[in-house]
Amino acid sequence: MKNRVITISREFGSGGRTIGKAVATELGIPCYDNDILQEIAAESGFDKDYIKEAGEYAPSGFLSAAFHSHNGYTSNSDYLWKLQYQLITEIAKKESCVIVGRCADYILQDQADCLKVFIHADLQFRSQRILNVYGETDESPQQRIKEKDKRRAAYHRFYTDMKWGHAQNYDITLNSGTLGIDKCVEIIKMLY
Amino acid sequence: MKNRVITISREFGSGGRTIGKAVATELGIPCYDNDILQEIAAESGFDKDYIKEAGEYAPSGFLSAAFHSHNGYTSNSDYLWKLQYQLITEIAKKESCVIVGRCADYILQDQADCLKVFIHADLQFRSQRILNVYGETDESPQQRIKEKDKRRAAYHRFYTDMKWGHAQNYDITLNSGTLGIDKCVEIIKMLY
Repeated sequence: MKNRVITISREFGSGGRTIGKAVATELGIPCYDNDILQEIAAESGFDKDYIKEAGEYAPSGFLSAAFHSHNGYTSNSDYLWKLQYQLITEIAKKESCVIVGRCADYILQDQADCLKVFIHADLQFRSQRILNVYGETDESPQQRIKEKDKRRAAYHRFYTDMKWGHAQNYDITLNSGTLGIDKCVEIIKMLY
Repeated sequence: MKNRVITISREFGSGGRTIGKAVATELGIPCYDNDILQEIAAESGFDKDYIKEAGEYAPSGFLSAAFHSHNGYTSNSDYLWKLQYQLITEIAKKESCVIVGRCADYILQDQADCLKVFIHADLQFRSQRILNVYGETDESPQQRIKEKDKRRAAYHRFYTDMKWGHAQNYDITLNSGTLGIDKCVEIIKMLY
């Protein structure tokens, strides 16, 4: 029998990662997000911070140009994609879990019993949350949201050919701003 | 205090109307769908069946050309839109309820405490459901789905300028095919 895997895609600042962690804790299953990146880093020899950034870039523009091709892949982003793909597949074979981001919904569509979740919220809610969680930077929260979401959408589209945030791609989408983080956790748990 | 109104947009054959009715019954509140059309029909003097059809057409093409302008509105569709708008506004002022379709999510956005829901499912699930619920016709279920969804999307977009089925427009979207009708009812009830 395939393992049950809850995949969470999310807009930046919507609390998707917080929701994923809470769901996993309450269900007593692991939650993968940065942990995956760190494992990839350990395997690939790439610098961890670089991988964290590259994991959200589609393979065009300065990042892919800035590095030489590696192991026959056309870009470092492609190489990282392949590594993530393998790692996520192995994790899903091993155990039921929550995976936040990394296109896990697409990667696992035929390989696990997935619950595909998308978390979003309006700009005001996300801006406030970003300030509370990540603190202030030179860029405004609105600029940071725009930049992050643009990267995630482009990355998702490039590798999956699916539209990010389109209801039809998910089992459930939740507005954490209007429903609240706790209610989102409660609903997702019900569907495990 | 504003009334709580659950608005349900849905793909044809996804069970959105069935879900709306079940939610309303279990919560002990009214559910409006065809009833609204009938009230409009009674007020406007239009033929009921015509209204049912026109309510899902954007005001271009043969329908608006087929009738003369009425009461100063540019098309009969616009006239019907205005009537629906008034009626839905009055209902939401009067009581908490479920409203299926008719762009109620848009109409009531500032006038009620809305829970905006979108129900969808894949083609296979919807085709089977259409055959079970509505029976066979000369057109295949796939053709009927394509035609109906196209009309609903165009109507919604024309009058609301919002993209139908885009997660960000709703508090929650549910895939009735993967989650099941009963689970959708249970979740929506939780959010009332």
